[in-house]
Amino acid sequence: MTTQQLVNEIRKKKSFLCIGLDVDLTKIPQHLLKEEDPIFAFNKEIIDATHHLCVAYKPNTAFYEAYGLKGWKALEKTINYINEKHPEIFTIADAKRGDIGNTSTMYAKAFFEDLSFDSVTVAPYMGKDSVEPFLAFENKHTIMLALTSNQGAFDFQTKTIEGKELYKQVLETSKSWKNSENLMYVVGATKAEYFSEIRKIIPNSFLLVPGVGAQGGNLQEVCKYGLSENIGLLINSSRGIIYASNKNDFAAAAAKKAEELQNQMAEILN
Amino acid sequence: MTTQQLVNEIRKKKSFLCIGLDVDLTKIPQHLLKEEDPIFAFNKEIIDATHHLCVAYKPNTAFYEAYGLKGWKALEKTINYINEKHPEIFTIADAKRGDIGNTSTMYAKAFFEDLSFDSVTVAPYMGKDSVEPFLAFENKHTIMLALTSNQGAFDFQTKTIEGKELYKQVLETSKSWKNSENLMYVVGATKAEYFSEIRKIIPNSFLLVPGVGAQGGNLQEVCKYGLSENIGLLINSSRGIIYASNKNDFAAAAAKKAEELQNQMAEILN
Repeated sequence: MTTQQLVNEIRKKKSFLCIGLDVDLTKIPQHLLKEEDPIFAFNKEIIDATHHLCVAYKPNTAFYEAYGLKGWKALEKTINYINEKHPEIFTIADAKRGDIGNTSTMYAKAFFEDLSFDSVTVAPYMGKDSVEPFLAFENKHTIMLALTSNQGAFDFQTKTIEGKELYKQVLETSKSWKNSENLMYVVGATKAEYFSEIRKIIPNSFLLVPGVGAQGGNLQEVCKYGLSENIGLLINSSRGIIYASNKNDFAAAAAKKAEELQNQMAEILN
Repeated sequence: MTTQQLVNEIRKKKSFLCIGLDVDLTKIPQHLLKEEDPIFAFNKEIIDATHHLCVAYKPNTAFYEAYGLKGWKALEKTINYINEKHPEIFTIADAKRGDIGNTSTMYAKAFFEDLSFDSVTVAPYMGKDSVEPFLAFENKHTIMLALTSNQGAFDFQTKTIEGKELYKQVLETSKSWKNSENLMYVVGATKAEYFSEIRKIIPNSFLLVPGVGAQGGNLQEVCKYGLSENIGLLINSSRGIIYASNKNDFAAAAAKKAEELQNQMAEILN
């Protein structure tokens, strides 16, 4: 998917909501555990109930890998279902990968080719030659961690490195990498005051923003400082939506939560 | 496996060699492609031919994920084969994972419980609460990236952050994390002159050292500055060993290369 197609979809749906499909078998409605593939059964109902309200889905690979082969199969079925039923929806493999050159290419193939995701999240610690292999894939997007929403972000990311915080160095440096137009960035909503600084470095790049809702981030604040000309934001909510209820009505409850966020987004876009 | 068990094994075998099982289907002997599971078939022969020469095996997960479900199955079969046949060998899932708290726990479960690896590699960018969930597992080891062997290591890792290079900050900071005795670190062999500095910060921790051989690192140099009282080094070689030949004799050729390294190690240990 091209960035322009994503922007068009946002304008059409009046939504820049991304729903995180982080399926924990201890949290889903217990009746689903009788299904042959409870993870996919859960995702399918969530997708059926929410696809008109969001522009992106983001399975975090940890939740699939934890269930081994069955989990990987559920991930494959989930991405295939989205791509077949809703090809207009942007898909993010939240995998936070990163390795040396040829090994990064293997990861890129795993997510862009084998699983046909539109994008994958990556970690910046190993630098340019660990990220450029992902950027080489046309119409695929690489979403690099910049400033994350957890407490540990203050351990290294906000420390000053040669006169500038590490996360700013990461943003700045990555602009010179080959095919950097395929880069997006992860910036946590819990640090809304940082968005205006970030926009000075990357005025137009898309930002994937976790931390609204469960982690306490504020949508209005993030939009105030983070919106760009082409919108440039994907706001993610996972637990706040998919675990709105753990009863039979879980899909409807998820849709209700998603709609609340989408309504706020429509207002902001108007 | 406890660290002491690993040290005992090193002394017994006179080897601190780790063999990287990074299986690329375009590089293995073509006759194996007829097998039902060519990746596992390759690994099985390599393991059968080299297990007496090394103390650790390290599959890099990228090479398995790139082949989707089949790849994940091959990874599962490989770790099960090692654990059944050679439980004394230390196993490393080279996955370079890292995520927010509860999600890191899911990754830890994937590698420590579902796949029963002794250790997993992680990335430090997201800080303390992304790594501590891994450290909570008893007799499991978390190998954190410190100074990697690629060119991109100079993008951020060696930059000065509050008076000290980032990789040193990472080493220093991680010492205060809960259960930090379960930490090991990745330090590339291509930067041998850094080892004496690193040993000042972490005198006894085990270091996983890639980059000997194919990437140009020198074993003697690394040992000169990197050996600790309890040895404290695992030297990894992947391509240099497993792709020594792509003919029918590939396993014997791999054993020969492994033996060359093991002989050098035995000499150093004497």
